[in-house]
This record gives sequence, structure tokens and C-alpha cells, in this order.
Amino acid sequence: MTLEHLILWRRDLHRLPEAAWKEFRTTSLIAHHLGELGYRIVLGDKLLASNLMMGRDVDVAAEKARARRQGAHPDWLERIGDVTGLMGELDTGRPGPTLAFRFDIDAVEVEESDAEQHQPQQEGFASHNKGWMHACAHDGHTAIGMGLASQLMAMKGQLCGRIKLFFQPAEEGCRGGKALAAGGALDDVDALLSLHIGIHAGSGELVINPTEFLCSTKFDVHFMGTAAHAGLEPNAGSNALAAACMATTAMLGIPRHRDGMTRINVGQLHAGCGRNVIPDHAELHGETRGADSALNDYMFSQVQRIVEGTALAHGVTYRIIKQGEAIALDNSPALQAELAALAHKQGLATIQTRRFGASEDAGFLMERVQKQGGEAAYLILGADLAAPHHHNEFDFDERVMQSGVELLAAWARARLGVTEATLS
Amino acid sequence: MTLEHLILWRRDLHRLPEAAWKEFRTTSLIAHHLGELGYRIVLGDKLLASNLMMGRDVDVAAEKARARRQGAHPDWLERIGDVTGLMGELDTGRPGPTLAFRFDIDAVEVEESDAEQHQPQQEGFASHNKGWMHACAHDGHTAIGMGLASQLMAMKGQLCGRIKLFFQPAEEGCRGGKALAAGGALDDVDALLSLHIGIHAGSGELVINPTEFLCSTKFDVHFMGTAAHAGLEPNAGSNALAAACMATTAMLGIPRHRDGMTRINVGQLHAGCGRNVIPDHAELHGETRGADSALNDYMFSQVQRIVEGTALAHGVTYRIIKQGEAIALDNSPALQAELAALAHKQGLATIQTRRFGASEDAGFLMERVQKQGGEAAYLILGADLAAPHHHNEFDFDERVMQSGVELLAAWARARLGVTEATLS
Amino acid sequence: MTLEHLILWRRDLHRLPEAAWKEFRTTSLIAHHLGELGYRIVLGDKLLASNLMMGRDVDVAAEKARARRQGAHPDWLERIGDVTGLMGELDTGRPGPTLAFRFDIDAVEVEESDAEQHQPQQEGFASHNKGWMHACAHDGHTAIGMGLASQLMAMKGQLCGRIKLFFQPAEEGCRGGKALAAGGALDDVDALLSLHIGIHAGSGELVINPTEFLCSTKFDVHFMGTAAHAGLEPNAGSNALAAACMATTAMLGIPRHRDGMTRINVGQLHAGCGRNVIPDHAELHGETRGADSALNDYMFSQVQRIVEGTALAHGVTYRIIKQGEAIALDNSPALQAELAALAHKQGLATIQTRRFGASEDAGFLMERVQKQGGEAAYLILGADLAAPHHHNEFDFDERVMQSGVELLAAWARARLGVTEATLS
Amino acid sequence: MTLEHLILWRRDLHRLPEAAWKEFRTTSLIAHHLGELGYRIVLGDKLLASNLMMGRDVDVAAEKARARRQGAHPDWLERIGDVTGLMGELDTGRPGPTLAFRFDIDAVEVEESDAEQHQPQQEGFASHNKGWMHACAHDGHTAIGMGLASQLMAMKGQLCGRIKLFFQPAEEGCRGGKALAAGGALDDVDALLSLHIGIHAGSGELVINPTEFLCSTKFDVHFMGTAAHAGLEPNAGSNALAAACMATTAMLGIPRHRDGMTRINVGQLHAGCGRNVIPDHAELHGETRGADSALNDYMFSQVQRIVEGTALAHGVTYRIIKQGEAIALDNSPALQAELAALAHKQGLATIQTRRFGASEDAGFLMERVQKQGGEAAYLILGADLAAPHHHNEFDFDERVMQSGVELLAAWARARLGVTEATLS
Repeated sequence: MTLEHLILWRRDLHRLPEAAWKEFRTTSLIAHHLGELGYRIVLGDKLLASNLMMGRDVDVAAEKARARRQGAHPDWLERIGDVTGLMGELDTGRPGPTLAFRFDIDAVEVEESDAEQHQPQQEGFASHNKGWMHACAHDGHTAIGMGLASQLMAMKGQLCGRIKLFFQPAEEGCRGGKALAAGGALDDVDALLSLHIGIHAGSGELVINPTEFLCSTKFDVHFMGTAAHAGLEPNAGSNALAAACMATTAMLGIPRHRDGMTRINVGQLHAGCGRNVIPDHAELHGETRGADSALNDYMFSQVQRIVEGTALAHGVTYRIIKQGEAIALDNSPALQAELAALAHKQGLATIQTRRFGASEDAGFLMERVQKQGGEAAYLILGADLAAPHHHNEFDFDERVMQSGVELLAAWARARLGVTEATLS
Repeated sequence: MTLEHLILWRRDLHRLPEAAWKEFRTTSLIAHHLGELGYRIVLGDKLLASNLMMGRDVDVAAEKARARRQGAHPDWLERIGDVTGLMGELDTGRPGPTLAFRFDIDAVEVEESDAEQHQPQQEGFASHNKGWMHACAHDGHTAIGMGLASQLMAMKGQLCGRIKLFFQPAEEGCRGGKALAAGGALDDVDALLSLHIGIHAGSGELVINPTEFLCSTKFDVHFMGTAAHAGLEPNAGSNALAAACMATTAMLGIPRHRDGMTRINVGQLHAGCGRNVIPDHAELHGETRGADSALNDYMFSQVQRIVEGTALAHGVTYRIIKQGEAIALDNSPALQAELAALAHKQGLATIQTRRFGASEDAGFLMERVQKQGGEAAYLILGADLAAPHHHNEFDFDERVMQSGVELLAAWARARLGVTEATLS
Repeated sequence: MTLEHLILWRRDLHRLPEAAWKEFRTTSLIAHHLGELGYRIVLGDKLLASNLMMGRDVDVAAEKARARRQGAHPDWLERIGDVTGLMGELDTGRPGPTLAFRFDIDAVEVEESDAEQHQPQQEGFASHNKGWMHACAHDGHTAIGMGLASQLMAMKGQLCGRIKLFFQPAEEGCRGGKALAAGGALDDVDALLSLHIGIHAGSGELVINPTEFLCSTKFDVHFMGTAAHAGLEPNAGSNALAAACMATTAMLGIPRHRDGMTRINVGQLHAGCGRNVIPDHAELHGETRGADSALNDYMFSQVQRIVEGTALAHGVTYRIIKQGEAIALDNSPALQAELAALAHKQGLATIQTRRFGASEDAGFLMERVQKQGGEAAYLILGADLAAPHHHNEFDFDERVMQSGVELLAAWARARLGVTEATLS
Repeated sequence: MTLEHLILWRRDLHRLPEAAWKEFRTTSLIAHHLGELGYRIVLGDKLLASNLMMGRDVDVAAEKARARRQGAHPDWLERIGDVTGLMGELDTGRPGPTLAFRFDIDAVEVEESDAEQHQPQQEGFASHNKGWMHACAHDGHTAIGMGLASQLMAMKGQLCGRIKLFFQPAEEGCRGGKALAAGGALDDVDALLSLHIGIHAGSGELVINPTEFLCSTKFDVHFMGTAAHAGLEPNAGSNALAAACMATTAMLGIPRHRDGMTRINVGQLHAGCGRNVIPDHAELHGETRGADSALNDYMFSQVQRIVEGTALAHGVTYRIIKQGEAIALDNSPALQAELAALAHKQGLATIQTRRFGASEDAGFLMERVQKQGGEAAYLILGADLAAPHHHNEFDFDERVMQSGVELLAAWARARLGVTEATLS
């Protein structure tokens, strides 16, 4: 896999970033590439458990029309149903274990910088989809996955077992992982690898066992009250906005926990319709986090109680809707050692452990594999950055994509490679 | 009845004011006076419905000991049970209607001024019971009642029917009226009069139909949570103080009502035990008011919902305890006309209507009488004042007491008087 | 003036309602009609004080384009500048007083009912401008003004003095009146009449002296804080949403006032941008009201203090922007009597006084006239209604428009009419 | 020093515990003991900087009278001024370094258990001062200090340099340490030792370098508003209780900090005077904590801003009063090694580090010594406990007191011991 190919793919994706659950163009291009290579393709509708997809609000027809205008592959676009993402499967035909890789493909809501010195501007691949940007390197992850697909297919003759490449939609906000895990396609996987570019590590480095993945629940709360004329009969209303204000204030006051880090945020609040009307609805978007699942559960259970109580206090009704979820993740120990050795051979400087400090819904996939006896690991592929993740001048050293492909391919060869003797 | 007697009684009571439910000395002196005159005495324990006495927290033994030291009548003090107040009944032995009069006897929590120009200081009858003062003229009401008792007994030979004189405890905070009404002693009463000295009217004036008696509910709320060390495990507590703060804030925000005046106050809040302990209890004292019963009910039902909801939101339990209650009152129309005519004859300037603007639990007594077909009225006996009611320099023109006795006696004569012919 | 004409005008306006400050079509049609009749036209830009127009956010080009598509008069549309509304002046050429009339022309944000039994649906003149509706009878007011213009011009030969017809934009939200008053065109007016259709009075009735016009201030508050990643460094943000919640809660808790009715509402709150970002901005839309200006000032001054304090408590900055204002209004006594007599003659049942209970920025115009010694009155022209004002099935008995025109014309004749003798 | 002596002292102190700043009996007994031994005594008035004593509210005459009744040493009681605590100094007369030891002497507000199985009840030394208890082992610390005084004086002939024994008042609530440090008596000290019995370590263990001493600020907030009759003119008040509720709610919502553990508590709130009066004062008692000084400063600065802002929002004034303060502390490395070696020799099991997890104002004393180039350490002398610290059944294995005395004496000998040669 030449670096030039990886860069072409990455920049094409960077130029046309797609939001979570709207990655129709991206999905069609990956599907076309893997399909051409000979992979068996399973599309999103068959891959994700529909009842567990979170934070999904898509006008499918409009998004597909947009994707078509922006150069989606027309045949695949037609085949894609309502749900983005896909799996490509390579079956060597020889008995052996099943390996899996997971790449996330969606962009983030950041308006890309138009500063002259910003490399994507200079090189002409800055985002054309205003307000959205690949500021979290998922374009790089996707390119690595596409490159790995080529590489593995080229090695097919020397491999046994099966390989599954997962291209997951909606990682931002931790909205897609739980549904992908529950979909069942990982249930025969013996070992799963996932990676992220450039978190707290530079080019040429590999973090073997990143820690402190925050457990998180993303939620919306709706309060439904009764409107009334605020001048004529204020007593006749049930004030949803007042309930939301009190709920927000109370949530911010959830006590800290003895056992470690917790977080709460109400990031958005929208309520009311007219200046002189008692507001009959309010909607807030929030999230809890915890250093582990018990801590996050503590926070979210308090949120639920606060919402119930403040709704009661204001005589309004409510709904709480989970919009995303991430759990902790633990790299399988033997797999860590194996990958450290491979990285070493490849000339990468290995870092045993480093703080991740954010959330990742890969945890659901890893848990699914590990619970049935498989192994799983999540790596940080170091990369020099122009600016931090989610910053509007984010950019990364594209050369690391090649290392990524090579490391993953090397691992596949180590696990699935067959000797000449076996082949004959 | 000479004015000198009225003044003596009033000043004696003024000097030794007793708080609501603690009027043991006062009760004993009235009972002695009426008993000597020949009235049948019914004491508090037999007079008030025990389950409806509100805001009552009395160390009976200690208060009786105090009353004894302060010159209570020893025999009557012994006969008084736990509950203060009394009724004296005069039965003429001749068939006829039953009239009733109600006087309130308790003092208010005000520390009397020690200013030289304050008349009670000059004349040496300022309060000896520190922190308590007859700053609402109940000393005057009681003296009028005692004087009326003498006057009526003196007229007994010319009267038919029966007369009941009610000396009600615990009017301040509207704590005694509901229990007295429910006690049943008013159930055979054909007409009831009550009066207040000096509200918005001067010496020589009589307000026939005062209006805007505020309906009110006095309540305490207790929140019970769980203590925990605020440093070591803040998550382990349930914060009763936080619940009380949120409840208070929400109560202050109860919407105004289309139909008229409403009020809410949280007058006291006491919570917590140690600086470094999550507070496990909180207690707040509040009141609602409304221009009519529906408005006060609206306010108090919101309070109840808020307490329930905020307790739930904070994971604490709660109790709401009613500590006082006042309803609206309406003077019977025919009785108004009758009293206006009598007042006229007596040389008083009558004012048809004037705003009362506060609460009075005489409403319960009047409602009881009126519901069974009787008549009732509440009068304002005008008096020039040294300072407003509840002020620490409150004092009133004592001469009006004599007018009061005469007006009430004149009414009794008009209703119950018998002609020589009848007598012979 | 035939009723048929009035109905045609009213239904045309009803079909194409225009929001406050966007009444370009309406303004052009009125201007055309009055211009044809021979009135001197003064358009909005010359009529309203630009610094006092409140709650104005208009894309003038887009609105004019819309108005053109919807049949605005093209020549007048061109002459109208940025500001809607107009005055038409009739100068009789004979010395005499100056009379004025004020009509409001904007629609309200209500989506008209599509129920079959709703008369405007049946007759085909329901709103074509989705989300907006003449649900406050300003279409009727405007039609009356146009009919009056015809009538008065027809009478011109029998009149002395001058007549000014004001068609005011942006009465909804009380946004235009203050600027119109300050514009100065009323400064030579001796007497001003304004009216409203159907508030608490039925067809055939006229309320001579409606009362309880609420004083009101409409305001927006912006809080500006600092964004930060809610997971990584929550301490680095300044939470504008939290400030807005606390401000809202505190505003709802502004104490009731001894002197009478007050109101507070926060009708809308919009805050934050991303679920995982400490919100750096919040915007709330509110209003205060009071039974008189002092009460409204009390409320609004508390709002200002609360906003300042809560901003400080949360380390954010703020702006408060007035978006509308209404003051009380008092009908000149002599004018009341005069109008009652005229109404009587015309066969209308007069009601001396009735509660208005809402806000009206005609108060600014009346105050301007009265302060310089003129007279002013605001009448309620009774009308049977299909549903209350601002309801989506609002409709009124169109026949009352003719009575309205006749009453106003009769008053003009009474004040400005000249005898044959004078004319000859 | 026999264990019997230590136990006698400890149980005598346990039976008559004295609150912070009220340790008059305790101080007199220590002073008497050390004075008899030949120590130079410096009493509290000369030892503590008066402007930095925090959370001190003492009726000195009453407390001294109580202390006298409870067996204080009468001569010393007379000599003690207003301030408790003392220093005893032993000067060997030979040149050498100055060593210091610090013991805290006050009790904590806990009502001792009357359970039969509670050892102090069985043995008859449970607290006679109701509501107060030596539930934090300061009785043991004091006994160790008194025993050490005897031991050192017995060794005087073999020592050079000087020794200062500090008996600090008011450690609970971290109220006395800052004033003692600022008093200057430590300024010539070369090395300082302090210890605590039984925190997270059992009998026979010694923790060399306890960590995670929480920085903390204890504070009271007073809000001063304006009273008004809640029914008659609620608008005339400035509600201090409402301000306190909002301040409390906002404080609980101070954002968590990226850099580590923070805490906030409002442990008490007392506000208002009458149910029907707008509350004109409110007082709250709170504390902030942080894993280090920067974190605690972050918390406390937010508290200050919140109080200022909420006071402004409610139109009330405020005062913030610091009632206690603790900073972090770090054991000098060389001293750690030295003490570990000594403990080893003495047969104690040493634990290098263990979490302390609470606050200690010894930090101010240690900082004072270390800043001028001296060394300091704080040790945990392990002890088996009957119940946790501050629990009402707290009790500790008294035998550890002897180990404590021996370890401290051994250190003094190691540092100040002189050879026979030197002596001769």
C-alpha cells in the first residue's frame, strides 16, 4: 500500500466530511473499494441493531441526494438502506481464527479554519461541508482501513481463517458502537483491533495500553407542560422552561463521588415559543461521565431522579432519551505484549500506557468479543498534530497512516499466516 | 362597667403577656372572674378539638409553674388541663335565642420598646415577659370580654335566652380558631359577634363590614436525608439542605394568579449540623395567603407539589405540617344593619367598609355559626394608636374599651331584652 | 362606506397577514388607497424615531420581494423605505383643530386553524402566510381606517381643520408605538382616537373607558461565557446556560407587590452549542408587566439586578435589550362623555368601563397628545367572536366595522363640522 | 515512661474533653506537669498570632469556671489568659540543634455512645461533657506529649541543643495551626515531628509518608437583607434567605476540576426570624477542599464570586468569614529515611506511604519550619480501632502510646545525644 493512495483517500474524505448517521457517500466509496477487491459486504441495515442506534435524526432521502451530488458511488448508494456503515469480510477458505478490525468514519461538528497557514486550505482539501470537519482523524482511520483491505487481499494466499473489517458509523457522541456490538457480527471474532491517531503521542510512537477511557451517557430530556398567556392567566400554565432550569441547576450540583472522576454537562437548552406564553416545552441535551461504569451509572441515575423530581415539582411531564453511550475498555494482556513486539520490529517506539481521557464506543465492541472469550485491544497510533483534536485547525502527519496499515497487516500475518508446507 | 376597671384588667394582662397556647395565667383570671359572677365555665380541654390545634408546642408543667409565679389564680390553674382558653355561659332560664361573643387572649412575639415616651413604660405596665408583648390589643379584647361579663350578669333579670362568652387561645398565627369551631360549643349559637381594636379606624369610629381578610395556611416542612462526611464520601449523603434550598426557590416562583392577590413566604430555614457533614435534615417555616380560599388553596397545593418533587429530586423524604389556618369571613347583612343602627345611637361614627388586609381565624367560628343558619359579624372598634399593630411601641386609646362593652351589651339587650309585661 | 367594501379589504388583509415591521404589502395598499383619495402620505421612515423601534429584525429586501409576489402596490412598495406604516393627512384648508385616528396593522404569530367550520376556511380567506394570522382583528382595524379615509374625504367640504390617519406598524409585542409617538407627527394633534374590536364586549356594544391596560417591558437577555470541553476541563469554562437558568429561576421569584398586579415571564431560552461543551452563550426572551408604570418599573428593575448578579456569580458577561414597551393609558374625561353621547345616538349600547387586561402601545401616542394639552381616548368596539383573541379560530362579526367607521366619522363631524352659514 | 501513666492521663482527658479554644483544663494540667519537670512554659496568649485564630467564639470566664469545677490546676488556670495551648521548652545548655514536637489537644463535637460494649463506658472514662468526645485520639496525642516530656527530661544529661514541645489548641476545623505557625516560636526549629494515631494503619505499624492531606477552607457567609411583612408588602423586603438558597445551590454546582479532587459543602444554614417576615438575615457554614492548594483556591474563589453575585441579585449585603484553613504537607525526604530506620529498630512495621484523605493544620507548622530550611515530618502511628475516627464508639489500642513515646524519644536521642567523651 503506497502512502500516496492513503493520502488521496484521506483528503477526499476530509474534503467532504459527513456527520454521524449521514455517512452515505463515505459508506458507498468504502463498499465499492472492498467489493471490487472481493470482500463480502454487509451494509448497515443488516449490521446494526436498530433499537440501539442512538442520537439518530436523519432525512435519508435528502442526505442520499446530497451524497449523490458529492460523488457517492451510485450503485452502492442505491443498495444502502437507511443505515450507514458496513462490514467487509474476507474468507480465506482455510480453517483458522477470525480476526476483526474496526474503523470509525464520521466527522465532527466543527467549522474548519480558513486560515492561510492551515494545511488543508493550502493543499485544497479543506471541508466543503460547512460546519463539519474531520477534526478527529476518522478520515485517516478510514483510509487505513481501506489500505488494510487492499493489503490483506493481496496476502490472501498466505493466510488462513477469516478477516472482518468493520467501518462503524456515528462514533462521535458514542452513538453507533452499542448497536454495532449488539448486531451480532462480532460474535465469531477471536480477536479485535481498533486504533486512534495521535492522542497524546507523536509520529513514530505507539501506545500499547491507553487508559482512562471515560464512561459516558449522552441524553436528551424533554419537559412537556401547558402553555398559557403569561399576562392573563399565568396560573393556568405548567412551566416546562422553569422545570428545565431547575433540573439543570440540580444536575450541576450532583455531588462528587468518593471513588473518582465524574462529570456532568448540560450543553444545550431550548425552551418556549413566545415571549408572552408560559413555555410548554423544553429540551436539554446533556451528558454524564465517570472514570468507570459504576461512576457513570451513579451520575446518570442521579440525573434520572432529578428529572423526575423537578418535573413533579413543576407539574410537567418528561421523557429522557439516551443519545449515546460509552463504557470503559481494557486491552487483553497477551494481545498487548504481542502488539508491542510487532511494533518494536517495525521500528515504532512503544509507550506502555498513557491517559486517553475521553470517551470511545469501541468499548462495546471489545466487551462483546472479550465476553465470549476473545481478545481485543485499542491502540494509539502516535502522530504529530497541527492542533488538538476537535480544534478547527486540527491536522495530522499523514505518514503515520502507512505505519498503521503495516502494523495491522503484520498482526494479521502473525496470527493467520500459513507456512509453505501448510499451503502445499 | 367603669373604665377604671377595664384599664386595670388590660394593664395587668399587658404587663404579663402570654404566648399562644400558654395563656394559663390569663385563662385562670378570666375563669375566676366569670366563675365569681355565676357563669358556667367550660375549660379548653373540653372546648377545643384536640386534633385541630395547630402550631402547639408547650411544656405545660413549666408554663403552669411560670403562671403560678406570676399570680395565676391557684384553684383555677389546677383545674385547667393542658389546653388554655375557656367559655363562660350565662343561662337566663327564660326561653330565647343564644348569643355568643368571641375574644382572643394571646400575645405576640415582639420585644416591647423601652423608650421613655412609650406610655406602658411611663405608667409601669410594660411587658415583664421578655420577647412577648400585647402588641395586637388582645389585652384590650380580653378586658372588654371581662367587662361585658359583668355587665350582662347585671342585666340578667331583664334578659331571656343564653349568652356564651368565648375566650379563644392562640389567635396569633391562626392556630386556635379552627379547633374551637370544631369543638362544637358554637353549634347552638344563633348569632356571634367578634371585634378587633384599632385596625384602620380611630377612636369613636366603628367599621361595620371590614373586608379583605386574607386566607392563609401556615406550614412547616421537614426534609430528612442522610448524613455523610462531606470530604470523604459526599456521594453517600442525601442532602436535605439542598432540597430545602431548591424547594424554597421554587416556592418563591409559584406563578401569580389571574384571580387576585396571592402571597408566599419562607420565613425561616434551619438545616444541617456540622460544617463538614452532608446535612441530613432541614426545616422550613412558611405561609401562603390568598385573597380568597380558592387562591390560598392554589398556593398551598403548589407548595405541596414542590415539596414532593424537590424531595424526590434530592432523594430525601419529607413531612408537611400545617401550623395555622385562616379563611375568609363575611358579615351577615342583616346583622350589619342592626349594629350600624345601635352604633349610631351610641354616638359612634360608622364606616360601612374598610380593608382589613390581614388574617383572622375568627372566620372558622363565623363559618360554623353561619353554616347552621345563624348570623355572625366581625367589627373593627376604632382606636387612636401610638404605633401600628405588632410594632414594639404599639399602644391604643384605652377609652374605646368602654364603648366596646356598651355596644356589645346594647346588642344583647336588643336581642334578648324582655319587657316588664313578659317578666311579670 | 358600504359594508361590502370593508369586508373585501379586511379579508384581503386576513388572507395575507404580515408580521410586525414586515407590513410592506399592507402599507403599500393603504398608501395607494389614501393617495388616490387625495391624502398627503408620510411613510414610516419619516414617521417613526429610528432609535426607539424595538424588536425589529427584518430582511427588508426579502420581505419586499415577498410583498411584491403577494400583490403589493409596486409604485408604493418602491417608495417605502425600510420602515413600514404610514400617516395620511387631510387638510380641509379651513382653520380648525387637528384630529387624529390610530389603527394598527400587523398580524400575530398564530397558525390559523384548518378546521372546516372555521369561517375564513369556508369562505376562502384563511391565512396564506403559514404561521401568521390576523387573530387580533388588526385586519378589521385597518379596514375601518381605510373606510374612514373614504368617508372623511367625502365629507371634506363640510369640515374645517385637519385630520391625520395613523396606520401604526408593530403593535404586537408593543414594539412600534413608542417610536411613532417620539416621531413628532402627533405634536399638533388636539384629539386622538384609537379603538380595538371585540375585547370583552359583543356586537352592538361600545366600551367608553376600558381600564387595566397593563404596563409592560419586553426584553432579551444575552449571557456570554467561555466554552470548554465538558469532559476534559470543565473548570475552564464560564457557563452561560447555568447563569441563564439561575437568572430565570430568580426572576420567577421576584416578590409580589403590595400595590397591585405584577407579572413576569421568561418565554424562551436558547443556550449552548454542543452536548459536551460548556455553553458559552445563552439568550432568553422575557417580559414584565404591572398594573401601572411604577409596578412595571419595580419588576423590570429587579430583572436588571438579577441579571447583573447571576452573571457575576457565574463569571459571565451580559446584555439586556429592550424589545418592546407599553405604558398605561387614561381616556380624557370630557372625550368619554362626548363619545358616549354619539354612540347613544347611533344606537350602540354603551358600557362605561370594562377591564382590558392586556397591553397596548397606543398609550405612548395618547400620552404624547395629552401631555401637550390634547385629549385622547381608546375605545372597545364590541363584536361577537368565534374564539378569543390570539386563538387559531379567532374571527369576528364583520358588521361591526361599519359601526366603527360611522362612529369615528360622526365624531369628526361633531368636532370639525362647519355650518352652511360658515361655508357660505 | 510506664504505659500505666499514659493510660491514666489519656483516660482523664477522655473523661473531660474540651472543645477547640476551650481547652483550659487540659492546658492547665499539661502546664503543671511540664512546669514541675522543669520546662519553661509559654502560654497561648504569647504563642499564637491573635489575628489568625479562626472559628473562635469563647466565653472565657464561663469556660474557666467550668474548667475549675472539673479539676483544672488552679494556679495555672489563673495564669492562662484568653488563649489555650502552650509550649514547653527544655534547654540542655549545650550547643546543638533545636527539635520540636507538636501535639493537638482539643476534642470533637460527637456525643459519645452509651452502648454497654463501648470500652470507655465499661471502664468508666466515657465523656462527662455531653456532646463532646475525644473521638479523634487527641487525648492519646496529648498523653504521648506528656510522657515524652518526662522521658526527655530524664535524658537531659545525655542531650545537647534544645527541645520544644507544642501543645496546639483547636486542630478540629483547622482553626489553630495557622496562628501557631505565625506566632514565631517555630522559627528557630531545625526539625519538627507530629503524629496521628490510627489513620488507616493498625497496632504495630508506622506510616512514614502519609499522602493526600486535603487542603481546605472553612467559611461562614452572612447575608444581611431587609425585613418586611410578607403579607402586607413583600416587595419592601430584601430576602437574605432566598439569597442563601441560591448561593448554596450555585456553590454545589461549582464545576469539577480537571486537575483532581475538589469538594464543596454547605453544612449548615440558618435564616429568618418569623414565619410571616421576609427574612433579613441568613448564615451558612461551609467548606471547600482540594487535593492541593491550587484546587482548594479554585473552589474558594468560586465561592466568593457566587456569594457576591447572589447577594447582588437579591439586593442584600454579605460578609464572608474564614473559620479554618488547612494546606497540604510534605514530609522531608531525609527525615523519612531516618525515621523508618529508627522504627525498624524499635520493631515497628513501616509502611512507606498511605492515603490520609482528610485535612490537618500541622501543614502550616511544617511549612514554617521547612521554608526557613528546617525539616519536618508527619507520621501515622498505627493503632487498632473499635470504630472509625469521629464515630461515637471510637476507641484505640492504648498500648500504641508507649511505642509513640519511645519512637519520638529515640529520634531526639539520635539527633541530640552526646557521647561520654563529650560530656566529660
